[in-house]
Amino acid sequence: MRKIASGLAPVIPLDRNAKKPLHRQIYEGYRKAILERHLRAGQQIPSTRALALELGVSRIPLLNAYSQLLAEGFFESRAGSGTFVANLLPDRVVRAPTRPAARANMHSGRRPVSSRAQLLPPFKAVPWTRGSGAFSVGQVAVDHFPVDTWSRLIARHSRRLHARSAHFNDPRGDRAFRQAVAEYLRTARAVKCDEQQIMIVSGSQEALDLSARVLLDPGSQVWIEEPGYWLARRVLTLAGCELVPVPVDRDGLDVAAGMKLSRTARAAYVTPSHQFPLGVTMSASRRLQLLNWAQSCGSWIIEDDYDSEYRYGVTPIASLQGLDTNARVIYVGTFSKTLLPSLRVGYLVMPADLVDRFMAVRVAMDIFPSHVNQAVLTDFINDGHFGRHIRRTRLLYAERRERLVHCLHNEFDSRLESVGTEAGVHLTVTLPPVIPDRPLSERAALEKLWLWPLSPCYMSEPSRQGFILGFGSVATAEIPKAVRRMAMVLRPETDARN
Amino acid sequence: MRKIASGLAPVIPLDRNAKKPLHRQIYEGYRKAILERHLRAGQQIPSTRALALELGVSRIPLLNAYSQLLAEGFFESRAGSGTFVANLLPDRVVRAPTRPAARANMHSGRRPVSSRAQLLPPFKAVPWTRGSGAFSVGQVAVDHFPVDTWSRLIARHSRRLHARSAHFNDPRGDRAFRQAVAEYLRTARAVKCDEQQIMIVSGSQEALDLSARVLLDPGSQVWIEEPGYWLARRVLTLAGCELVPVPVDRDGLDVAAGMKLSRTARAAYVTPSHQFPLGVTMSASRRLQLLNWAQSCGSWIIEDDYDSEYRYGVTPIASLQGLDTNARVIYVGTFSKTLLPSLRVGYLVMPADLVDRFMAVRVAMDIFPSHVNQAVLTDFINDGHFGRHIRRTRLLYAERRERLVHCLHNEFDSRLESVGTEAGVHLTVTLPPVIPDRPLSERAALEKLWLWPLSPCYMSEPSRQGFILGFGSVATAEIPKAVRRMAMVLRPETDARN
Repeated sequence: MRKIASGLAPVIPLDRNAKKPLHRQIYEGYRKAILERHLRAGQQIPSTRALALELGVSRIPLLNAYSQLLAEGFFESRAGSGTFVANLLPDRVVRAPTRPAARANMHSGRRPVSSRAQLLPPFKAVPWTRGSGAFSVGQVAVDHFPVDTWSRLIARHSRRLHARSAHFNDPRGDRAFRQAVAEYLRTARAVKCDEQQIMIVSGSQEALDLSARVLLDPGSQVWIEEPGYWLARRVLTLAGCELVPVPVDRDGLDVAAGMKLSRTARAAYVTPSHQFPLGVTMSASRRLQLLNWAQSCGSWIIEDDYDSEYRYGVTPIASLQGLDTNARVIYVGTFSKTLLPSLRVGYLVMPADLVDRFMAVRVAMDIFPSHVNQAVLTDFINDGHFGRHIRRTRLLYAERRERLVHCLHNEFDSRLESVGTEAGVHLTVTLPPVIPDRPLSERAALEKLWLWPLSPCYMSEPSRQGFILGFGSVATAEIPKAVRRMAMVLRPETDARN
Repeated sequence: MRKIASGLAPVIPLDRNAKKPLHRQIYEGYRKAILERHLRAGQQIPSTRALALELGVSRIPLLNAYSQLLAEGFFESRAGSGTFVANLLPDRVVRAPTRPAARANMHSGRRPVSSRAQLLPPFKAVPWTRGSGAFSVGQVAVDHFPVDTWSRLIARHSRRLHARSAHFNDPRGDRAFRQAVAEYLRTARAVKCDEQQIMIVSGSQEALDLSARVLLDPGSQVWIEEPGYWLARRVLTLAGCELVPVPVDRDGLDVAAGMKLSRTARAAYVTPSHQFPLGVTMSASRRLQLLNWAQSCGSWIIEDDYDSEYRYGVTPIASLQGLDTNARVIYVGTFSKTLLPSLRVGYLVMPADLVDRFMAVRVAMDIFPSHVNQAVLTDFINDGHFGRHIRRTRLLYAERRERLVHCLHNEFDSRLESVGTEAGVHLTVTLPPVIPDRPLSERAALEKLWLWPLSPCYMSEPSRQGFILGFGSVATAEIPKAVRRMAMVLRPETDARN
């Protein structure tokens, strides 16, 4: 049996002026709570002493009520550990009427939902997101995470609770942490910033949401990359924006095409370091074109630099924000790829003149970020663990990437084309365009092989089919076997059509 | 000097085909990064071995470049610990041009911000929020927090990282935690729910934001309590809603008045257990009126049950949600008052038929909540620590409340009226209406006495002036002295006008 919370008191309204004696009211309150399953079998009941104190009554009526409930088998007493709700009735019989399906039928009348909420696709766990390993996207090498160091820092900080860390704080996050992040971004990404411009958020998704709410109005046109990151589309849809899909070629977002489609768009969302999902790096001339467009049209650029820490070529790529001389770029980054997605820690760099508006909106959204992870990460960065971890995982992922590229070439030859292999913890393979990717992804998931289809990255008709292959959570030695399994799944199609 | 992150590599673009030799390119890259302060004095430089591996070059050009940078005083070497950026120039001289004020002048052109972001008041740390202790609002007894238990649980879970906890999860939060929360709410608050309907969020503010985005459209009318919680007003403003302030009397929100003002409002935001800031409990007949109104008009009720765990009367009050037979209530709660505000963990209970829409919107906002605090809280609740902590702090706060009420009566007699003393970790005192509260709050803050003014809780012209006095973070023994200090600050006004 699952462990049960102990000692919570149910809501028993006592009426001292009622004719019914107190012990009877208490008895009936508990009896009702048990029969209606507000109290569950095995749950601990507060001692009569504790409950008397809480209800402001003497222990006598409680002792009376408890002894009756024990006698009737609603309570049971366990020597040395207290009084518990008895296992009275089979769970399923009584739980049935509280199931959501049943309750959902209990309502009637109009139940209006916002128009924007209706525009969003339902959350459903699609088959290819159900596991980790080959080739799930957005996952990292958990087994290489420095658990000991992290645990030591967390233990240090969870013992250091004091008033300052326990009450409401700067909506941007802890100053020391913002300093560490600013320094990291200046050094490693050539971002122009200081800690005043850093906002700590719960992952890059909140950074996009916050930016949309500060910068964009319902009906604002926004350039998005086609193909592109579907969760960026969702947050812009929720903001009521009109999405303008702009094609991506081997130099990144096609700025000239964007200007033809919507010259005066309010903003552009881009992933210049490692375009998601095609993996191209935006060329220097495109970067300058994009910055010039933004400046001439009074538009904003949201730069999502989600995995730029991992580059395997000789030339590191500086951020787009670092090239911007007009404070038109909102820079977004995350610790989801370098550390763990479940940390939910990301950051954005705000143009200095917008700091005030970003703070005002953030307060209305969730006031300020959680403290402990920030304190731990500050030490983790400042003590050099972060730099070491990136360096170590960069070598690890470089090895996995190389093995994957090699195996894909061996197994598929020219039937699959690999793109975007120079950075990040995933690469993309494209199928011959006549083969739809989704049914294959579904088939692969039955074999516990996770192939994220490429076609859902398109807003309009997909011009490519393929798979996004994550290699963050698959050991190098496992890769050849996984690629062979992938070939087995794809064989009927890839053989037939080539 | 502040501790500096070690070993981060700056962005140095190397061009193998350039006429300029590699060692010269590296030398110039570092020199530029140091002069432009992308690298800071004291920051550690990666070893030549590590950097050679990263850049994919031999160590020779790196050794050449490093020795030149050492010779010219850009680098300095510390025996046994590595190579560091030298403290070359006074910090202030070089930092000046990167300060936000200077940079803010660098931009030009149109810089459009969303209309809703413009509606929000700026975040400014008002004087009365600057400290903890007497009588700061929203603070808890940090010194009574079970740090040892918490640290033990956190250590346990931070060592148990595995793939499942490290990747993307259910947008509602961990199932085990939702089960523990659902059980707590069924037992202690008589909320009708199971874990399918629980959504874990980062504090009650995110719960309000999420509810607003799922339920309300721009222009939707929403009843709010007058006076009421200002952060609820902000989140509804950000959602583009039209706020309808409905007066609160000693039975809570005046439903009849609300129906006169806006019969067909889309929703009502209420704090029925302990109205913020006046502290009244909504009466049973008002609760039924409110539920009937919502049912007849197809409206929603958002119940913010922010501090109902602390009640000092004999009769516990069940949640409004528990009375609702038509699934019209969205129930919101938080661990900010029972544990720590800086945890940023709250929850909401969704009507079963809306779960799908809440999940779709949550994914677009920030995907899913952070893992570790959820795992720790699950054990904390299931092992009985939570019940014990609530019981212990309830006695503690009851004592503080009693002392505060007693001292206020002794010191001010009838010049201040105390309201809302039966629940929560704050109470409210009202001033004679001719005395404005804000200037007194400002004066008190100079004496490090934190008196939150009542008047900002009004959306329209305040009909009362006064202070919200938090007793969560002030020891019982300190209360008499703090009340005397409060009397000193208020004396000129309260004496003169009575």
